Amino acid sequence: MKYPPSLVALIRELSRLPGIGPKSAQRLAFYLFEQPREDIERLAASLLEAKRELHNCPICFNITDTDVCDVCADPSRAQNLICVVEEPGDVIAIEKSGAYTGLYHVLHGVLSPMNGVTPDKLHLKPLLPRLRDDMEIIMATGTTVEGEATAMYIQRLIEPLGVVVSRIAYGLPAGGALEYADEVTLGRALSGRQRITK
Amino acid sequence: MKYPPSLVALIRELSRLPGIGPKSAQRLAFYLFEQPREDIERLAASLLEAKRELHNCPICFNITDTDVCDVCADPSRAQNLICVVEEPGDVIAIEKSGAYTGLYHVLHGVLSPMNGVTPDKLHLKPLLPRLRDDMEIIMATGTTVEGEATAMYIQRLIEPLGVVVSRIAYGLPAGGALEYADEVTLGRALSGRQRITK
Repeated sequence: MKYPPSLVALIRELSRLPGIGPKSAQRLAFYLFEQPREDIERLAASLLEAKRELHNCPICFNITDTDVCDVCADPSRAQNLICVVEEPGDVIAIEKSGAYTGLYHVLHGVLSPMNGVTPDKLHLKPLLPRLRDDMEIIMATGTTVEGEATAMYIQRLIEPLGVVVSRIAYGLPAGGALEYADEVTLGRALSGRQRITK
Repeated sequence: MKYPPSLVALIRELSRLPGIGPKSAQRLAFYLFEQPREDIERLAASLLEAKRELHNCPICFNITDTDVCDVCADPSRAQNLICVVEEPGDVIAIEKSGAYTGLYHVLHGVLSPMNGVTPDKLHLKPLLPRLRDDMEIIMATGTTVEGEATAMYIQRLIEPLGVVVSRIAYGLPAGGALEYADEVTLGRALSGRQRITK
C-alpha cells in the first residue's frame, strides 16, 4: 500500500517549511485532509495573495503592500532616528512596545560567515545613503553572538560617517525574578544600572 | 504602523493549524514571504490538489485517491483479518513494518467522552457489516487511556458477533535498554513473556 501521489506531494511541500519535520508534515497533511474544503481554499488563497501583495519597502526593507511602507511614508516619525533590526518581525515587536517613534532599517538576517552570510548578503548597503550628520542609529540586532557581531560590524562601518551609533540596553526582562536571570544578563544589568535619585 | 492585511490574513490562516501558535505563524509567514513565487504557488497548488483528490475509502475509511483504497482493492491481502486503528497515519506506520498483510479499519479518532468524542463520532458503525464469523479483529489503537478504552469498548461491542478479537502486544520497544523503560511497560513486557526454547 502506498500513499496517494497528491498526499505525498503535500507532505513534501509541508516538510520544506522551517521547524516542520517529516512526521509533523504528515500529521499536518492528515489534519488538513479532515478540514472543510473552504478552509483549505482560504489557506491556499491567502498564501498566494500574501505573496502577490507583499514586497520589501525600497527604503527600509520592511514588509509592505504599499510602494513605501507606512513608517517611511509617515512624516510625523522622527526622521533623525533609524533603528536597525534583523527581521521584519522585530519591527512589529518594537512598534507594539510603543516606545519608539523613529524609522527602521531591516537587514533580513545577521552576519554569520560560517553559514555564508557575509555583509553583502544583508540589506546593509542601502542603509548608507540614508545616513545624515544629525542622525542616531540604534543597533537593535539580537543579543546572540551573531547579533552582537553584526551590531559591531555596522557600528565600525558607519561611525566614520559622523552619525551617533547606540545599542539597545541590556538588562533584566520585565517581570523576571533575579534568581532566574543568567549570570551574563545579571552582570550587564548591574553594570548598566541607572541612578534613580537626583 | 500596522501589518498589511494580506499578511494579517496569512498569519491568521497559519495559526489555525495544529501545533502552530501566533508566534510560529508569524515566523512562518515571514519565511514564506522570503521564498520564491514558484515555491508558494507549488505549496498552494498541492494543498488544493490534495483536498480535491483525496477522500476516505468507503470500506475502511483510510485516505485514498481511488474509489476504494489499495488495501481494500487487493485480493491478495488476508480477507479474514481487520486491524482497527485510530488514524490514517497508523495504517502507513503498520504497512512500513511489513508485518501485516490483512485489512484495516480507520476510526478517525479515539473515544474521549470528556472532549465530546462518543462512539457515534468515530467511523465505527461501518465496521459491523464487515465482520464475518471466521475473522480476527486486531485492536491496534494506542496504549493511551483513550486508546485502551476504545479497544475495550469495541471488543465488547463485537465479541457477541462471534469474531476473534485481539490486541497488539505490549512490551519493550526495539533498541530500548531496560533501565529506560517505565514500570508499566516493563511489567507488561514481563507478564507477556514468550518462550524461546521448545
